[in-house]
Amino acid sequence: MSEQGGFEHFVADVRARIEAWLALWLDARVTEARARGADVGAVADSIRQLVLRGGKRMRAVLLAAVYEGCGGAGGLDEIAPAGAALELLQAYLLAHDDWMDGDELRRGGPSVPAMMRARFGHFGQRGGPPPTDCHELLFGAPGQERADAATILAGDLAGAWAVRAMLELSIAPSRVVLAMRELGRVEEDVVQGQVLDVCESAGNRHDVEVVYALKTASYTVRGPIVIGARLAGASDDEVAALSAFAEPLGVAFQLRDDVLGTFGDARDTGKPSGSDLRKGKRTALVVDAMRDPRSEPILGRVLGRPHASDEDMAEAMNALERSGARARVEERIASLVARSLRELDRVRLSVGGRSLLSQAVVALTARDR
Amino acid sequence: MSEQGGFEHFVADVRARIEAWLALWLDARVTEARARGADVGAVADSIRQLVLRGGKRMRAVLLAAVYEGCGGAGGLDEIAPAGAALELLQAYLLAHDDWMDGDELRRGGPSVPAMMRARFGHFGQRGGPPPTDCHELLFGAPGQERADAATILAGDLAGAWAVRAMLELSIAPSRVVLAMRELGRVEEDVVQGQVLDVCESAGNRHDVEVVYALKTASYTVRGPIVIGARLAGASDDEVAALSAFAEPLGVAFQLRDDVLGTFGDARDTGKPSGSDLRKGKRTALVVDAMRDPRSEPILGRVLGRPHASDEDMAEAMNALERSGARARVEERIASLVARSLRELDRVRLSVGGRSLLSQAVVALTARDR
Repeated sequence: MSEQGGFEHFVADVRARIEAWLALWLDARVTEARARGADVGAVADSIRQLVLRGGKRMRAVLLAAVYEGCGGAGGLDEIAPAGAALELLQAYLLAHDDWMDGDELRRGGPSVPAMMRARFGHFGQRGGPPPTDCHELLFGAPGQERADAATILAGDLAGAWAVRAMLELSIAPSRVVLAMRELGRVEEDVVQGQVLDVCESAGNRHDVEVVYALKTASYTVRGPIVIGARLAGASDDEVAALSAFAEPLGVAFQLRDDVLGTFGDARDTGKPSGSDLRKGKRTALVVDAMRDPRSEPILGRVLGRPHASDEDMAEAMNALERSGARARVEERIASLVARSLRELDRVRLSVGGRSLLSQAVVALTARDR
Repeated sequence: MSEQGGFEHFVADVRARIEAWLALWLDARVTEARARGADVGAVADSIRQLVLRGGKRMRAVLLAAVYEGCGGAGGLDEIAPAGAALELLQAYLLAHDDWMDGDELRRGGPSVPAMMRARFGHFGQRGGPPPTDCHELLFGAPGQERADAATILAGDLAGAWAVRAMLELSIAPSRVVLAMRELGRVEEDVVQGQVLDVCESAGNRHDVEVVYALKTASYTVRGPIVIGARLAGASDDEVAALSAFAEPLGVAFQLRDDVLGTFGDARDTGKPSGSDLRKGKRTALVVDAMRDPRSEPILGRVLGRPHASDEDMAEAMNALERSGARARVEERIASLVARSLRELDRVRLSVGGRSLLSQAVVALTARDR
C-alpha cells in the first residue's frame, strides 16, 4: 500500500469508528432526553442531527494520529470517546455561533437555530405586543424567544455532553485529567476568540490571525493534537513541541478556509462561490484588500449583501486578486505550513505517526473543500 | 462551643476560604482575558463581579460537610477548587437564565445581560434598519445583538472556568474524574430542566417538582453532595445513599424559595414582597392555587405584571392563603425534609459530618432569606 493510500485508509477508519460511536451514543442520549419531555427530546435531537450530518472528522483524525505517534496503546477504539467529545464541543460552538451570526444553514441542512425556530417559532413574534392572557404569561414565552432559549440550551447541552463523552475514556485517570484540562482550555480560547470577533468595537480590532488562533486553530488543530498526546502519556516537553507544530497549522487551515469560502468552486465546497463576501465575513482576504483604498468601494457593494449582483461579485473577486490580497494570503499559508513542518521535524514520534501527521498537514491546508 | 455554634463557625470558615480562593483566582482570569482584548476583559469581569457579589456559598458548605463526613483528608483547602467550580457553574447558569428571563437584577446588582448591555448596547438597536455603511457591516453588529452575544459568551466562559477550577484539585485523579462526571451530569440536568421550564408548551407541562429536581436540586444540593463524597473516595453505595438524602432536600429548598419569593419580608430577602408573582414565575404556589377556579382571575391580575397595584397584590397573596396553596406547600416541605432526614440516618458518616449535614438541612429549608 502506498504511503498516501495508508493515510486515506487511516482517515476512513477513524471516520467510520467515530461515526459509529457517535450514532450509538447520541441515540442513547436522545432517548434519555425524550423520557424527560418531548421538547427536551427535540432540543437533544437537534444536536444529534447536527453532529451526525457530517463534518470531515479531521479533529478525530489528528487526535488519533498523534495518539499513535506518541505510542498510545489500544488503537482507535480506546480514544473514540475523546474524538467524539471534540465533535460535541464543535456542535456546542456551532449552535451558539450560528445563532449569533444568524446562519440558517449548516452542513447542508438547517442550523440549530433554524431547527429550533421550526419547532418553537410559531408561538408568537419577538417584539410583538405582550400576551394579555394569564395562561400565556404563565405557560410560555413568545415563540421566537422560546426558540432563542432552546438554541442556547441546545449548545449548552452539547457542551455538557462533550464532558460526559470525554469521561467515558477508559484510559488512566491521570491522563484523562490532563486531556480534560486541554478541552477546557480550548473552550476558553474559542469563547474569548468569539468575543474578539463579535463584540470588539471597530477601533479596537485585533489582528485577524490572533482571532483565528483562538477561535479556530484551538479546537480544530491544537486541541485534538494536545489531547491525543496527553492520552498517550506524552511528557510536557513533547506536548510543547506538538503545540508549536499545531499552532501555525491551525491558522493556515483557517486561511485556506477563507480562500475557499471566497474563490472555491460551489461543486466542491457545497457553498455558492463568494459566499463569505455575501455574508460580510471579516476574512483575512477582505481585511488585506481593504487596506487598498481602491478596493474599498468595490467590496462595499457586496460585503454583507446576500443579493449582490453577479457583476458586483465578479468585480469584488477581481479586486481581491488585483490588490494582491489573494496572493499574500496564499504566501502566508505557505509560510505557516513550512513553519509547521519544521516544528514537526523536532517532535519525537513513531515513523507511522509522523507520516500520518505530515499528510494531515497537506489535507488541512491544500484541500479544495 | 454549642453544636449550632459549631455549624455557624463551619459555614463562616468555608465561606471565607471560598471567597478568598475565588477572588484571587478570578483576578488572574480577568488579567489573562484583558491581555487578549478590552472587551474580552469586560466579558470576563462580568462573571468575576457576579461571582464575588455574593451568594451564601451553601453549595460549598454542603460539599465540605460531606467531604469531612466521608473521611476526606486535608480539610477545606483541599476542596476549595471544587467549591469554587460550583460557584462558577452557577454563574454560567445565571448568565444564560437571566438573559432568557429578561432579569436585570441579580444579587443586588446588575445581571450579566444588564452589564453587557451597558457596555455594548449603545451601538444600535435590534430590529432597526440594517446598517448601510460597509465598515459597520464589517466591523460590528448592532449593539443589542452584540450585548446578547456577549452575555451568552460570558456564560460559556464561566462554564469553561468551572471545568478549569475543578481540574486544579490536587486530589487523586481517579476521584477527580468521578467528581467531574457529576459536574457534567449536573450541567445536563439543569439545561434539560430549563428546557422543561422555558420551552415546553402549555399542554405538555411537567410536574413542577420534576422541573425543580432537575433545574435547582441538581446543582444546589445533589451535585455538591455527590462531588464532596466522590472527592473523599466514597463508594458507589455511599454515593447512592447520599443522593437519596440530597434529592428531597433539594426540592424542599426550592419550595422554600417559592414561599420566600412570594411571602418573604423584603428586609430579609432583598426582593420586594410578591416579586415572584410580579415576574410571572410558575412557582409551586401558583400552580397549586390555579387549580382553584376562584383564584385564577385574581392571580391573573398580578402574574407577570411588574406594575400590579398594591391592592391586587394583597388580594393575590390572600388567594394563595385562602385556596390552601401556601399550607399545602408548607406541608410538602415538611414531608420532604422528614424523608431527607430519614435517608440521612442510613448514610455512613462521621459524627461531626452528620451533625453538620442535619444542621444544613435546617439552614436550607427553614431559612427566612
